[in-house]
Amino acid sequence: MTSTLPEAVQGQLASQEIEVPSWAYGNSGTRFKVFSTPGTPRTVQEKIADAAQVHLHTGLAPRVALHIPWDTVDDYSALRTYAEDLGVGLGTINSNTFQDDAYKFGSLTHTDAAIRQKAIDHHLGCIEVMDRTGSRDLKIWLADGTNYPGQGDIRSRQDRLADSLAAIYAQLGPDQRLVLEYKFFEPAFYHTDVPDWGTSYAQTLALGPKASVCLDTGHHAPGTNIEFIVAQLLRLGKLGSFDFNSRFYADDDLIVGAADPFQLFRIMYEVVRGGGLDAATGVVFMLDQCHNIEEKIPGQIRSVLNVQEMTARALLVDRTALLAAQESGDVLGANAIMMDAFYTDVRPALATWRESRGLPAEPLAAYRDSGHQEKINAARLGGTQSSWGA
Amino acid sequence: MTSTLPEAVQGQLASQEIEVPSWAYGNSGTRFKVFSTPGTPRTVQEKIADAAQVHLHTGLAPRVALHIPWDTVDDYSALRTYAEDLGVGLGTINSNTFQDDAYKFGSLTHTDAAIRQKAIDHHLGCIEVMDRTGSRDLKIWLADGTNYPGQGDIRSRQDRLADSLAAIYAQLGPDQRLVLEYKFFEPAFYHTDVPDWGTSYAQTLALGPKASVCLDTGHHAPGTNIEFIVAQLLRLGKLGSFDFNSRFYADDDLIVGAADPFQLFRIMYEVVRGGGLDAATGVVFMLDQCHNIEEKIPGQIRSVLNVQEMTARALLVDRTALLAAQESGDVLGANAIMMDAFYTDVRPALATWRESRGLPAEPLAAYRDSGHQEKINAARLGGTQSSWGA
Amino acid sequence: MTSTLPEAVQGQLASQEIEVPSWAYGNSGTRFKVFSTPGTPRTVQEKIADAAQVHLHTGLAPRVALHIPWDTVDDYSALRTYAEDLGVGLGTINSNTFQDDAYKFGSLTHTDAAIRQKAIDHHLGCIEVMDRTGSRDLKIWLADGTNYPGQGDIRSRQDRLADSLAAIYAQLGPDQRLVLEYKFFEPAFYHTDVPDWGTSYAQTLALGPKASVCLDTGHHAPGTNIEFIVAQLLRLGKLGSFDFNSRFYADDDLIVGAADPFQLFRIMYEVVRGGGLDAATGVVFMLDQCHNIEEKIPGQIRSVLNVQEMTARALLVDRTALLAAQESGDVLGANAIMMDAFYTDVRPALATWRESRGLPAEPLAAYRDSGHQEKINAARLGGTQSSWGA
Amino acid sequence: MTSTLPEAVQGQLASQEIEVPSWAYGNSGTRFKVFSTPGTPRTVQEKIADAAQVHLHTGLAPRVALHIPWDTVDDYSALRTYAEDLGVGLGTINSNTFQDDAYKFGSLTHTDAAIRQKAIDHHLGCIEVMDRTGSRDLKIWLADGTNYPGQGDIRSRQDRLADSLAAIYAQLGPDQRLVLEYKFFEPAFYHTDVPDWGTSYAQTLALGPKASVCLDTGHHAPGTNIEFIVAQLLRLGKLGSFDFNSRFYADDDLIVGAADPFQLFRIMYEVVRGGGLDAATGVVFMLDQCHNIEEKIPGQIRSVLNVQEMTARALLVDRTALLAAQESGDVLGANAIMMDAFYTDVRPALATWRESRGLPAEPLAAYRDSGHQEKINAARLGGTQSSWGA
Repeated sequence: MTSTLPEAVQGQLASQEIEVPSWAYGNSGTRFKVFSTPGTPRTVQEKIADAAQVHLHTGLAPRVALHIPWDTVDDYSALRTYAEDLGVGLGTINSNTFQDDAYKFGSLTHTDAAIRQKAIDHHLGCIEVMDRTGSRDLKIWLADGTNYPGQGDIRSRQDRLADSLAAIYAQLGPDQRLVLEYKFFEPAFYHTDVPDWGTSYAQTLALGPKASVCLDTGHHAPGTNIEFIVAQLLRLGKLGSFDFNSRFYADDDLIVGAADPFQLFRIMYEVVRGGGLDAATGVVFMLDQCHNIEEKIPGQIRSVLNVQEMTARALLVDRTALLAAQESGDVLGANAIMMDAFYTDVRPALATWRESRGLPAEPLAAYRDSGHQEKINAARLGGTQSSWGA
Repeated sequence: MTSTLPEAVQGQLASQEIEVPSWAYGNSGTRFKVFSTPGTPRTVQEKIADAAQVHLHTGLAPRVALHIPWDTVDDYSALRTYAEDLGVGLGTINSNTFQDDAYKFGSLTHTDAAIRQKAIDHHLGCIEVMDRTGSRDLKIWLADGTNYPGQGDIRSRQDRLADSLAAIYAQLGPDQRLVLEYKFFEPAFYHTDVPDWGTSYAQTLALGPKASVCLDTGHHAPGTNIEFIVAQLLRLGKLGSFDFNSRFYADDDLIVGAADPFQLFRIMYEVVRGGGLDAATGVVFMLDQCHNIEEKIPGQIRSVLNVQEMTARALLVDRTALLAAQESGDVLGANAIMMDAFYTDVRPALATWRESRGLPAEPLAAYRDSGHQEKINAARLGGTQSSWGA
Repeated sequence: MTSTLPEAVQGQLASQEIEVPSWAYGNSGTRFKVFSTPGTPRTVQEKIADAAQVHLHTGLAPRVALHIPWDTVDDYSALRTYAEDLGVGLGTINSNTFQDDAYKFGSLTHTDAAIRQKAIDHHLGCIEVMDRTGSRDLKIWLADGTNYPGQGDIRSRQDRLADSLAAIYAQLGPDQRLVLEYKFFEPAFYHTDVPDWGTSYAQTLALGPKASVCLDTGHHAPGTNIEFIVAQLLRLGKLGSFDFNSRFYADDDLIVGAADPFQLFRIMYEVVRGGGLDAATGVVFMLDQCHNIEEKIPGQIRSVLNVQEMTARALLVDRTALLAAQESGDVLGANAIMMDAFYTDVRPALATWRESRGLPAEPLAAYRDSGHQEKINAARLGGTQSSWGA
Repeated sequence: MTSTLPEAVQGQLASQEIEVPSWAYGNSGTRFKVFSTPGTPRTVQEKIADAAQVHLHTGLAPRVALHIPWDTVDDYSALRTYAEDLGVGLGTINSNTFQDDAYKFGSLTHTDAAIRQKAIDHHLGCIEVMDRTGSRDLKIWLADGTNYPGQGDIRSRQDRLADSLAAIYAQLGPDQRLVLEYKFFEPAFYHTDVPDWGTSYAQTLALGPKASVCLDTGHHAPGTNIEFIVAQLLRLGKLGSFDFNSRFYADDDLIVGAADPFQLFRIMYEVVRGGGLDAATGVVFMLDQCHNIEEKIPGQIRSVLNVQEMTARALLVDRTALLAAQESGDVLGANAIMMDAFYTDVRPALATWRESRGLPAEPLAAYRDSGHQEKINAARLGGTQSSWGA
């Protein structure tokens, strides 16, 4: 246990920001069942109000990412003001080209030029939203892929993807960015058009400096060393953002750090090691999770705290001693330095530090005591609870 | 190529029966999107009518499995007559304890005795349905499990499962059976209460001789040697039934044989080897698939043909020569005997044989020429297309 | 952090025993290269002397498992006395039917009765060794399997395995046991004759009460929930022993707890939950690791400490509160109770407690200060360093 | 079945060349055991003589790849002449930086500049060998990696790798190439320095046009869509070569096409689709396998025939019809076109065509009839059989 965190660690933690996704506050589930919970938001405004609770109690989540069209409104400037009044900003804009019937066989990769244009136009619309929300990043996760060998032509789909992305990239403002997310599989079950970091890297390299890779921690093949990819993308200057969550099997979208806390530690260590906590590097940290059965706002609070706690542990690694052990071939010694940081219980020191900054020592308890949940449970009756609408 | 199939092979193929699931004719999809298709059934009667088309053109699918409550009707005797008039019977009854809000944290394993009883009662109701439909098998696939370590007590859930299953088993008629399906993961993402064949075996062994294991070919960890499990369960006398489909990643529910035809061949070889084609063994062959993006009736026709073609190849293995090669340690020779059967193009001989039995040489072409699809596309307007209703 | 461990926890920890394998002190490696280290034992006596160091500094490793024929000696009684003089006993006897040319295509499963008998006789010889060493357990890990489909007949191999095991089982003394280890793959690359817990369970169930399952934590398919298997086998009364190690990919045989400490915690929790720490349950805890590149004795010390630390954390779980949270459907609350125990830094309290029992607070430092390594580095010159001899 | 292959297919097949690796003729195995076989070569000359048999009977394997230092000789010009006299040439030179004690913690990535230079010098020596053998390609497969988190610094290892590769690249002659192989894991079990195609692509992109990627079909995470990578690398102009083999689990190094023939078909289809059979594309096809338990020369003959047969099937795909089906969204139709080619039994037509070119219709039978095996079994007594020497 460390009763106090070193000054340098405090400084790094003080500037940590984790975007929360609007859709985490709505219902989600599996193809078998979507369970609902009391108090679930019916509107984007209610989602933002819930997200603001996460920031209020943790100081960690100053921005809410939106998903278009799930969060479509007439007046984005008003929405921005609404959010800011609640103490949060609007963050990354996430596009959606997987729920329109037109996209059954692809969107940006479709063989039909008209459907590709429709998908491109959707992204141009997202950029217009960004102009009004003040968002910097356009995040593109494509569901494009095929279910059966032969169904599509892998090669030409990749070429069409490049063309479509170029058309979108061309419309980015000078301070806007495009981040391209990759995913191993699902909803496509044979081939996915952006299945791995190599593809996302090759495509964004071709686009230019305003394009980079989004790494979702649940989007890899079993056994993949994710922290290696973090280190590599930081080295190549192409790590744009994280979608945090955790998994035991596939893209389970569990709470970040829940399935393999040591993996989260190793990821955060490579972030620290590669300078990814420095604002100049431009890495955005974001959650992308599904609280299928657990409470949503507490689930989000737990998540940002998990990231904070692991960041603190990663920052505690004695890098000077580590380098010395590495250079001397001391395998057990080097590993022990990592493990010592991981096994350090940073929670008491973080609680103290939180209080020193005017935040609750125990954010989850503070949220429960706040009465917000009871309030929304009582108030949000009628209407249609937000969900993915699949 | 073999222009004619050996008599013995013809005999085995002539008695092959593959159950088709009613829900394969309705819409299915992923958590991201369920696409619809023209002509999709709105009622269980329409599903059965579609299933009858598969049997009509292939002679392979004489029974339709039902899913309760998706296929609930007031009069099951009438439904049986309806099916028989179309040339098919009603098969396995599949229970559902994953879509009622009560089952959010479990059904047969739930900590709450009232919810367990509700789930038990659902199965007793299914047995009553079986009494009226003449179905022999009650298939139990449980979605029970947890998403986070600690959420449930693995051990006591297993004990409660045993108790609940015993209560259901006790109500089986003398000629009825219970088959317990296992699944690696989904919709639970940390632990699943019946995750592997070992668990299904241990639970059904405790129940007695009328209980056995259902093996779904998509429900295993990556790399699992499924044909080994087939051989083992046949050896132990506990292979009750198959749910056929195929996968590249998780439980993709693609057309059987589509992802790894050689695996299907190896599975069918072990079925043949272990006597699983003999009616006395009691192994039921059934499809369980999701035609998310492809046409449904043709998808089902393709599926039963894939099983038939692979069964033919498996039957062509020269087992005498194979045994000799195995006993002499001739690795390449033994493997070559297997591969020779696999690479044999049985399609022309099967087409000829089909015609000799009054069936179309090319079932898919025959279906397309039949006009059924155009007819249902035109007729089935309005109403709500059947789906999982997740 | 807990500065002191609760009395009950101390009591459980005080009786914890972890067997160490003689072969961990010899060289090991991959098919690409076996690196050697200074001071590596040349004889079984030197291996035992090294193992005794682990017990001396930790109090956790009172027995050394032997591998026959790697550890064959003329006089096992003398070896036993030698070990006891060093403060340790002789433990599990591990058989080897994978390095004789005769076993190229199998041992207990071979088609040739003479080779099967040779393999059976080897195990009968191991039982004779056990009679003299006082070992209770005969551990059978079979490399038997095939590399190509068709190479062997899966079904009859399983039958022959049952017969061979029965012949061995019949020779066990009244207080002796047979534990059958399963392994997903390697060295066989198509099918393995004992690939999963289900097979080991079915085979040992057929043998009788003196036979049970050995669970090696590195022998599962990717994603397998190992703690579920622990809970299930304890429930079925068939968990005989553990082979501890850890892995990122295949059977990596890394230091237990190194790859996924949270998994080790969950495994130890199910051990505690299922009564597996009670001597009456008969579960043996053992290491089976390969220190390919790290120092061997420190690697073993690190390993037994990892098991002890995780056992302490598992014992700290507030099971009353956990049960209440589980029964109330409080997903986040239940998970938080588990995580609170996992994140508790038990190391300081364990150090204090160790000292109170006359053991070094920091066993690794004590070992380094002891001069043993320098002594063996200087003394063990010439001869042939022990290894697997592959 | 096709009784004759179309002219265009014959033309493409006629120019197909598959390099065979010298080490496939020596013994190989696992960390548990290396079995030997009669007639195993003791020298590089004997390996080449065996390789020449593969070409003699198949016409498919005109070059033998060498491994330095396993195949080190004093006079490479003489070795070249020796090979040419047997009807084969010398192909790719494979370096080895994994068996010298100096490389325990890395080679081209090592923290110690002297060890990096030693590894660089080894590669410069390989280039000198290439100058004399007339080999075009230097293949680098690195075993570099770590077994425990913290053991090495992932980021700086990547930087040092780039520097080391640049030093080697600078010494390539104008017609020489460097191909960088990636591998998911083994022998390193935590992180590998070149674990995926993305890393190999990024590193070879930085080097320049004479550097490209080597794709070993056994070096991927479970479930990876390898044909996607083939299509992508061809698109990016960076597919240098293949190392063919097959696997069920890890890097099993089984006979190509043995584990998943349909996957090999899909890979060969993407090769055809992307122009990879055209000499101008520069893709080298090579085997890299371990005949642990099967006969080696027949194993190699089986392997090159497998590649040829799958290439023939891939060439039979009706690409015009396929494109039409893809563009019309006909999922089942498009898939059926692929499957039709896959299920076509090309073996009789290939046998006929072989004979028309003066080759044996049945190469394996011809080899067995040739007496070569009996000759080498009798002649190669004494000496030390070649192996990896791990």
